[in-house]
Amino acid sequence: MQSINIGVLDSGIGGLTVFRALLAEAPHINFHYIGDTARVPYGSKSPESIRSYITELKLMLEARSQLDALIIACNSATAAFGDTLTQLAQYPVLGVIRPGAERALQVSQSKNIALIGTTQTIRSGAYRRALEHHGYEFKLWEKACPLFVPLIEEGLESHSLSTSAIRHYLAELPELTDTMILGCTHYPLLLSQLQQAFPQMTFVDSASAIAADVKTRFSKSPQKTYKSVRHSIHFTDKAAFEHRLVQNIISNHPLDVIE
Amino acid sequence: MQSINIGVLDSGIGGLTVFRALLAEAPHINFHYIGDTARVPYGSKSPESIRSYITELKLMLEARSQLDALIIACNSATAAFGDTLTQLAQYPVLGVIRPGAERALQVSQSKNIALIGTTQTIRSGAYRRALEHHGYEFKLWEKACPLFVPLIEEGLESHSLSTSAIRHYLAELPELTDTMILGCTHYPLLLSQLQQAFPQMTFVDSASAIAADVKTRFSKSPQKTYKSVRHSIHFTDKAAFEHRLVQNIISNHPLDVIE
Repeated sequence: MQSINIGVLDSGIGGLTVFRALLAEAPHINFHYIGDTARVPYGSKSPESIRSYITELKLMLEARSQLDALIIACNSATAAFGDTLTQLAQYPVLGVIRPGAERALQVSQSKNIALIGTTQTIRSGAYRRALEHHGYEFKLWEKACPLFVPLIEEGLESHSLSTSAIRHYLAELPELTDTMILGCTHYPLLLSQLQQAFPQMTFVDSASAIAADVKTRFSKSPQKTYKSVRHSIHFTDKAAFEHRLVQNIISNHPLDVIE
Repeated sequence: MQSINIGVLDSGIGGLTVFRALLAEAPHINFHYIGDTARVPYGSKSPESIRSYITELKLMLEARSQLDALIIACNSATAAFGDTLTQLAQYPVLGVIRPGAERALQVSQSKNIALIGTTQTIRSGAYRRALEHHGYEFKLWEKACPLFVPLIEEGLESHSLSTSAIRHYLAELPELTDTMILGCTHYPLLLSQLQQAFPQMTFVDSASAIAADVKTRFSKSPQKTYKSVRHSIHFTDKAAFEHRLVQNIISNHPLDVIE
């Protein structure tokens, strides 16, 4: 019997939007999540610190199960590694930036793309490099939106404060922009407010982009039978278990929840 | 020649409002600051995590100089220790909660006091216990305001988003309230917006309360001569050095800045 184990690392709870998409797209795989809630957020921290945290989290996952792949479900962390991401392990290591960048290039008509993310993700230039990698002509408008994560963490997505913050950060969005990359795994939770503010925009969300990528790489073989799946969620600080998003995922999936 | 060394610990840069007040009130003392910017913010983390971080930071300070006292310039951290705070070291350990609570009881006429702070500080009930300790009759209205720290960290104190956030959190402030405790070391940076929203209110700020306390405990003796003072600032993640508040303090004081 076959069993595929994939680790999912994030700075906190935001990566659960990726985890949720993975559970939906590839239900034959065991997914093991660690959120570094003891040190969240990564967005304002230095690349050196972030790299050492991610390495620690990876060792924690490896101590529990033999991994077939590792997903860094955090844009700030993916950005902090840059080209050295794949060297993190012997097995495949996937970041959230490349799939999001590719999807944006596919869907944009005008090739005027906007990117929103944390300070660290924007400053790294990682999305720009991933977009340039494909050799297409494009224009990129980038904006760090540091208040979005705390607004979401507080459950204020639908509050007028979120609408005001969206207006504040995106006031100078160039008119030709037709595609916006949600360059932070928290941001899909703010999607409906962003859609209301920009009804013509196509939003590219790294959660669904990476889930589609994983589905292709680790597709279910009709010749094989699979062990019944067991997923797990772990946090470095257990206060995260109280969050609405965590509760929601726990109540909808068969999970081993580890404090 | 006499030399007094006092350590100042905080989760990040907020405690610099206390550090700044200490430099002004007790210029004969060497103050050594560590901000745990690698793990900021503490406000949403569990008491167990916070206590282990503070213990680590204390050891880092002790490795550098022989301390005469330690100030926990962070409300969330002070709250996480509760009654065990003074057991942290053989020398005096001072938190920011008791001085703030005492000052509020002194200045309030109506004894209707409001407390604003992080989720962790409010949840701990530490201010309520500190107020009750004095046996006075009082009414306390408490409100966690998790967006204030990120708004301040982003330099948006004067932006309409801060005004909206103040309105959001303090909409139900009881009418008789005449004194508000700023139960987070970041909040003094939002003082002028709070004063505009509540012009009749007396704001109690733990920075000045604790600086006055230290000045009394370690008063300069006219019989002694003091070595020329050396202060230091250290952060567990060096990205904090770019912050406006840090730059401002560094440019105004003789400091050893340690990355």
